[in-house]
Amino acid sequence: MNSLEPMSTPELTLELEAFLHCPTPAPWLDWALQNQTLMLIDHANCEKKAASNAMGLMYRHVAHTDLLTKMSQLAREELLHFEQVVTLMAERGITYERIGPSRYAAGLRDHMRTDKREQALTDSLIVGAIVEARSCERFARLAPLLDAKLGKFYLSLLRSEARHYRDYLTLAAQYTGEDINPRVQHFLAVEKWLIESEDEEFRFHSGVPRKI
Amino acid sequence: MNSLEPMSTPELTLELEAFLHCPTPAPWLDWALQNQTLMLIDHANCEKKAASNAMGLMYRHVAHTDLLTKMSQLAREELLHFEQVVTLMAERGITYERIGPSRYAAGLRDHMRTDKREQALTDSLIVGAIVEARSCERFARLAPLLDAKLGKFYLSLLRSEARHYRDYLTLAAQYTGEDINPRVQHFLAVEKWLIESEDEEFRFHSGVPRKI
Repeated sequence: MNSLEPMSTPELTLELEAFLHCPTPAPWLDWALQNQTLMLIDHANCEKKAASNAMGLMYRHVAHTDLLTKMSQLAREELLHFEQVVTLMAERGITYERIGPSRYAAGLRDHMRTDKREQALTDSLIVGAIVEARSCERFARLAPLLDAKLGKFYLSLLRSEARHYRDYLTLAAQYTGEDINPRVQHFLAVEKWLIESEDEEFRFHSGVPRKI
Repeated sequence: MNSLEPMSTPELTLELEAFLHCPTPAPWLDWALQNQTLMLIDHANCEKKAASNAMGLMYRHVAHTDLLTKMSQLAREELLHFEQVVTLMAERGITYERIGPSRYAAGLRDHMRTDKREQALTDSLIVGAIVEARSCERFARLAPLLDAKLGKFYLSLLRSEARHYRDYLTLAAQYTGEDINPRVQHFLAVEKWLIESEDEEFRFHSGVPRKI
């Protein structure tokens, strides 16, 4: 895996597009632009949830020092992004209302193996990588369509979340006795379905709006 | 509440001693020195748990922007300390084994009011302040008794954890319609009992060892 530093934003975007099985559909982008308040609230929730998920792994796998350190660093970065989103919401007069999650994370979680500890860890790390990769891809697509301040913020997130996607994949390979690629491809196929099919409600990781 | 910056470590220690209802008993200090491996493992757990508790408040009280920001910053600091403890454990060849918590946090939690949302928040924040204050007081007492590296580390933690104790109290006063002092005194009395009475197992926040 190449070092992240020398890659430009377009190179990063190409890498993410090559990894994911489909790009974000145009109707989702329109949906997002029409629901920017909801997008920011759900974005704040996603950053918080990303930190919680990383911490969940830190509770379940105390013997893996590398994992503990990387997940803790990742959680700190997600929390910093959370603070940035909350500040931006406050500047825009957006009230942080309680909203439920999309079907996306649960849809991926449904496919996780839970019987064996090592398999559960592998699948959790792969799902972590995919969620980060999709978030990045959406930040990159949204950035040029948003106002300057939000666009710049989303581009800044792109780089750190891309590092997270790589960290998750590296850890999955490191702590797994098996070749991770078949599981990665399985989850990417599930993810493509969640992204391209019709969804009930707009969220940062939702599918496309139902045709009326 | 005074600014933290101009206070020296002895002044900080005096403030914490004035706040808490009792100092750490000498038998606990002896117990800790004889159980340094267990102390570091439990310390790592406590840092992780402190971050989780702060995040729990961030899930339950999304409308309080100040609380969200302060708790997120606090969680990031606790996670950084977690990484520092884990690194120190690895340097010392200590295996991070899974151990249960002490009775301390549960003993305080038993007294929390849960019926009304605002009261639950007040009590959570007060308990947060007390746990941070006791941690600080123990860092200060342990530091001169430990090897130079660990002693220096514990003194460095003292300053940031003291800020956390104040942040918790400030938030409790800010988000509460009532005078918080009666609740603070109630929890401090419970805490004194947990600290001074005999306990089954050594932990960072345990009581004194059972006399044989």
